[in-house]
Amino acid sequence: MPTAIPEINQHVELVTPQRGDGLVRVRLDIAYDGTDFSGWARQPGQRTVCGVLEDGLSTVLRVPVALTVAGRTDAGVHASGQVAHCDLPAAAVQQPLDRLLRRLARFLPADVRIRGLRLVPASFDARFSALRRHYVYRLTTAPYGAEPLRARDTVSWPHGLDVARMQDASALLLGEHDFAAFCRRREGASTVRGLQRLQWSVQPGGILVAEVSADAFCHSMVRSLVGALLVVGEGRRDRDWIAELLMLAARSSAVPVVPAHGLALVAVDYPPEEQLAERARATRAVRGPVG
Amino acid sequence: MPTAIPEINQHVELVTPQRGDGLVRVRLDIAYDGTDFSGWARQPGQRTVCGVLEDGLSTVLRVPVALTVAGRTDAGVHASGQVAHCDLPAAAVQQPLDRLLRRLARFLPADVRIRGLRLVPASFDARFSALRRHYVYRLTTAPYGAEPLRARDTVSWPHGLDVARMQDASALLLGEHDFAAFCRRREGASTVRGLQRLQWSVQPGGILVAEVSADAFCHSMVRSLVGALLVVGEGRRDRDWIAELLMLAARSSAVPVVPAHGLALVAVDYPPEEQLAERARATRAVRGPVG
Repeated sequence: MPTAIPEINQHVELVTPQRGDGLVRVRLDIAYDGTDFSGWARQPGQRTVCGVLEDGLSTVLRVPVALTVAGRTDAGVHASGQVAHCDLPAAAVQQPLDRLLRRLARFLPADVRIRGLRLVPASFDARFSALRRHYVYRLTTAPYGAEPLRARDTVSWPHGLDVARMQDASALLLGEHDFAAFCRRREGASTVRGLQRLQWSVQPGGILVAEVSADAFCHSMVRSLVGALLVVGEGRRDRDWIAELLMLAARSSAVPVVPAHGLALVAVDYPPEEQLAERARATRAVRGPVG
Repeated sequence: MPTAIPEINQHVELVTPQRGDGLVRVRLDIAYDGTDFSGWARQPGQRTVCGVLEDGLSTVLRVPVALTVAGRTDAGVHASGQVAHCDLPAAAVQQPLDRLLRRLARFLPADVRIRGLRLVPASFDARFSALRRHYVYRLTTAPYGAEPLRARDTVSWPHGLDVARMQDASALLLGEHDFAAFCRRREGASTVRGLQRLQWSVQPGGILVAEVSADAFCHSMVRSLVGALLVVGEGRRDRDWIAELLMLAARSSAVPVVPAHGLALVAVDYPPEEQLAERARATRAVRGPVG
């Protein structure tokens, strides 16, 4: 039924400094096509999402901008629901929000978008206040490969897969475990995580989608989980192997890491405002400043 | 509910020459991302869909291949349901279909795919047997522009649009009319077409989709229809203007042609086998060899 398109972000937020330093905290909702980026994190001489966004925001707002992000995605990984925050002088964002989004849209390259921008309490931390991250992994078993318009975010996997078998093995991974076998080790960082969802679904044309949610993920964890489950789906290993992997204290070389371009960060959940600070304290205590 | 992924095209077709000349007619179902192609039709020195496909097929099958296509799309226009045919020596396609699709998938660039390949009667003509073509046009009114992973097939149109008004005006265009005002004129070719569907729908995030179906379209017709209706949706003209355009005998410069990259050919319909030849005769009689 045709209706008028609802205006997005139509209410301009009133900007008032909330702190003694005259700065306001701003939450940014971000989407990007990871294909032509060397990941999120700034690296000298590389085109990174953080670098392009910080440079774009600094130019448009005429103040230095430093972003803190919910999920530092790897090279080639996409996002439709990435979240970041930064602190800005109140005057820098004292303008109609729609106009600001349009200005940023014109200034930024087409492969990264700021979808929304709003004031949040100073207790909001895009990284440490996050309750959970939601990722999606897309692959296709079609013999002809990925649909051209989805080739950037769909991995071609033209092999027979037993999805029921994969779903059955996925159930073993749910809950709190040491995911060391699925993580690239980092000194002093825990690899204990709480996996809340790992759901496979089949779409028309042989598209297979895994939805994976956890409080947080260690490095390469989603791609390793998917890689291990594809080994099970092809019948080369069984569910007992998945159970054994969960007992390991270090990364397993038997677990393939599937290609980055099938992966996208689709959403990050945060607690209600009054629990933001407490959540950040708890996360820092568990995972430490580098976790 | 997880289930085994159904194999696509799992039945190998038995290939037997149907004609005295030892040739068989093959139907190809094709998808492409039009971004980096100069349209379908071969042009010297240009990368075209037809050129890339004919070269790829000729190399893999080791015979010359000449394609006849249902819809000769312009530069930048995409397809998920394009159809073509060609005549081949029976021996060239005497191999398991899945293996052939995989070989073609490896050989062709990622922005064009042969999704299916099957034997058809010699009376099947991808162009002249077609009953109707279905196109989709995608745009977004979001202030931040198109989602990065859909930027290749979604036009950014950050203006207020009254979709009910556009749908109302669209109804005037249904049925058989002379669409001269919406067509680039070609000598001796009729611009009478039967428009069967022009439906607008709104998706979350400000995505606006037009579904447009007709027996056939003349050059730039879908992009001109959408362009005229956006003028109405923005309130700059009303439905009477659309009615007036239908009275014109020549292209109207007041009708904007919207960008190519929002447009995709999504399906082509054909009659049942026994009516193929009759349909081709009827189409040729109405539109002539160049229609």
